[in-house]
Amino acid sequence: MLQSFQQIIDIAKGKNATIALAGAEDIEAIKAIKSALDFGIRGILVGNKDIIKKHLETLQIDLPIVHSENETESSEKAVKLINEGKANILMKGLVKTATLLKAVLNKEWGLRTGNLLSHVAILETPGLDRLIFVTDGGMIIKPDLNQKVGIIQNAANLAHDLGYEKPNVALIAAVEVVNPDMPETMEAAIISKMADRKQIKGCNIDGPLGLDNALNLMAAQIKKVESEVAGKADILVVPDIHSGNFLGKSAVYLAKGKIAGLVIGAKVPIIIVSRADSSESKRNSIALAAAISK
Amino acid sequence: MLQSFQQIIDIAKGKNATIALAGAEDIEAIKAIKSALDFGIRGILVGNKDIIKKHLETLQIDLPIVHSENETESSEKAVKLINEGKANILMKGLVKTATLLKAVLNKEWGLRTGNLLSHVAILETPGLDRLIFVTDGGMIIKPDLNQKVGIIQNAANLAHDLGYEKPNVALIAAVEVVNPDMPETMEAAIISKMADRKQIKGCNIDGPLGLDNALNLMAAQIKKVESEVAGKADILVVPDIHSGNFLGKSAVYLAKGKIAGLVIGAKVPIIIVSRADSSESKRNSIALAAAISK
Repeated sequence: MLQSFQQIIDIAKGKNATIALAGAEDIEAIKAIKSALDFGIRGILVGNKDIIKKHLETLQIDLPIVHSENETESSEKAVKLINEGKANILMKGLVKTATLLKAVLNKEWGLRTGNLLSHVAILETPGLDRLIFVTDGGMIIKPDLNQKVGIIQNAANLAHDLGYEKPNVALIAAVEVVNPDMPETMEAAIISKMADRKQIKGCNIDGPLGLDNALNLMAAQIKKVESEVAGKADILVVPDIHSGNFLGKSAVYLAKGKIAGLVIGAKVPIIIVSRADSSESKRNSIALAAAISK
Repeated sequence: MLQSFQQIIDIAKGKNATIALAGAEDIEAIKAIKSALDFGIRGILVGNKDIIKKHLETLQIDLPIVHSENETESSEKAVKLINEGKANILMKGLVKTATLLKAVLNKEWGLRTGNLLSHVAILETPGLDRLIFVTDGGMIIKPDLNQKVGIIQNAANLAHDLGYEKPNVALIAAVEVVNPDMPETMEAAIISKMADRKQIKGCNIDGPLGLDNALNLMAAQIKKVESEVAGKADILVVPDIHSGNFLGKSAVYLAKGKIAGLVIGAKVPIIIVSRADSSESKRNSIALAAAISK
């Protein structure tokens, strides 16, 4: 169980990971890489070499450049750098997410593994004694049952890579009882039973749980919810992108906490940060990617 | 604009409101009323008089009792106390929510106004300089367009009753752009336009907005979202009960903040607290109901 991003940064420091930045005409993305240089990150910048050179001068750092003429070429060249073993993290700069993912999913030279791609956010907040994983608040809009199982497997793999032996996965909803008027609670019940039958392995799964009784042992006891997961959840699986997105952002805007995010399920972690993310959040996302890099 | 629950308690103190507690065999509910006696709240306890008397002895307070034999009778008698002008707040004790609401919605002696019933939570968190209203994370599972308009009108009425002249209402989603794959963003756009055309009055409305750019002016500026609401939202309208519920609970469990909740849209405010709510949260919910009582 991890308590803080500092522990993730400590893991990242042992890795000497290399980022391929697709669309490196983005000075903010280069700044984020610069902020992570102190934990041994290296970067290869893919994009228009003239613009990138100016940014490097402004930031007074030196990083290798691979020239490209446009977004599609930047995405392809970044993905191919990873396939050639020259980088082990992919990062989105000034390219559209759809363009980057198209390159990632290319059947010939892409980064497919057979798993679906999903988003995981990790939160560090004043209210909790541990890091919490939230998925999927960034990638899959409204997952169906199979996609939800894929989301869980991706998140469990991420937790394993960070040293969790058997993470606790809570499928959360507004209530902890099965309510036929809330399909999300029925799906949670179904997935819990799939885990009982060993159809999903490597983690403890329970749901439906409320956010309170997933996270807080006392809340679980008051509601008389008993399971390995209740009150001790590491991973929160949310019904859809909106609910997960709010939960992640609430950690920052309500709780003054910290957040990192990653797209997982491809051969390497993919960093897709938003312009509105703080520089600390971008640094934490890079640390997270580096910590699980191979 | 209100900054803290203390301000709501100050408003409540001027009101001398009276609660009709349906199902007063619930010692926790009586405790909550006791905790609010210092701001001039009175209570009438409806339920089995023998059990209630014992609770009052345990708590060393004295409140009037109206005897009833069962949940249905308790709900009816509490609602009728309000219709007779003897109380101006309804509170749920040891009765099922469905039983209480059936009494509230009775066409002959109920508390209908023509508005729908909806839930509003108010949050006070370390990350924000103001109270935030979240609706609906407690009552309507997945509102359709008309229900969403009703939810907004109820929340705006609540804000007016608390002294807001023209509250800022943000229809939030995972993203602030209209995305045809996310019906919630299209519905937000539609409702925004309805407000432009004065089909919804008494508030400024904008959406879709992300949680970040609804609450935080800098996040709105970075994303270049410009409106009266962006960065200055008072009321957050969420897509469904799950997302609203997580947001409310995140204020407590992630942010160590405070929360109050109320069902509005009937002739009087209805307090429905959960066993897992803290005593402070119950006290704040009573203060909120008292503050808007008439």
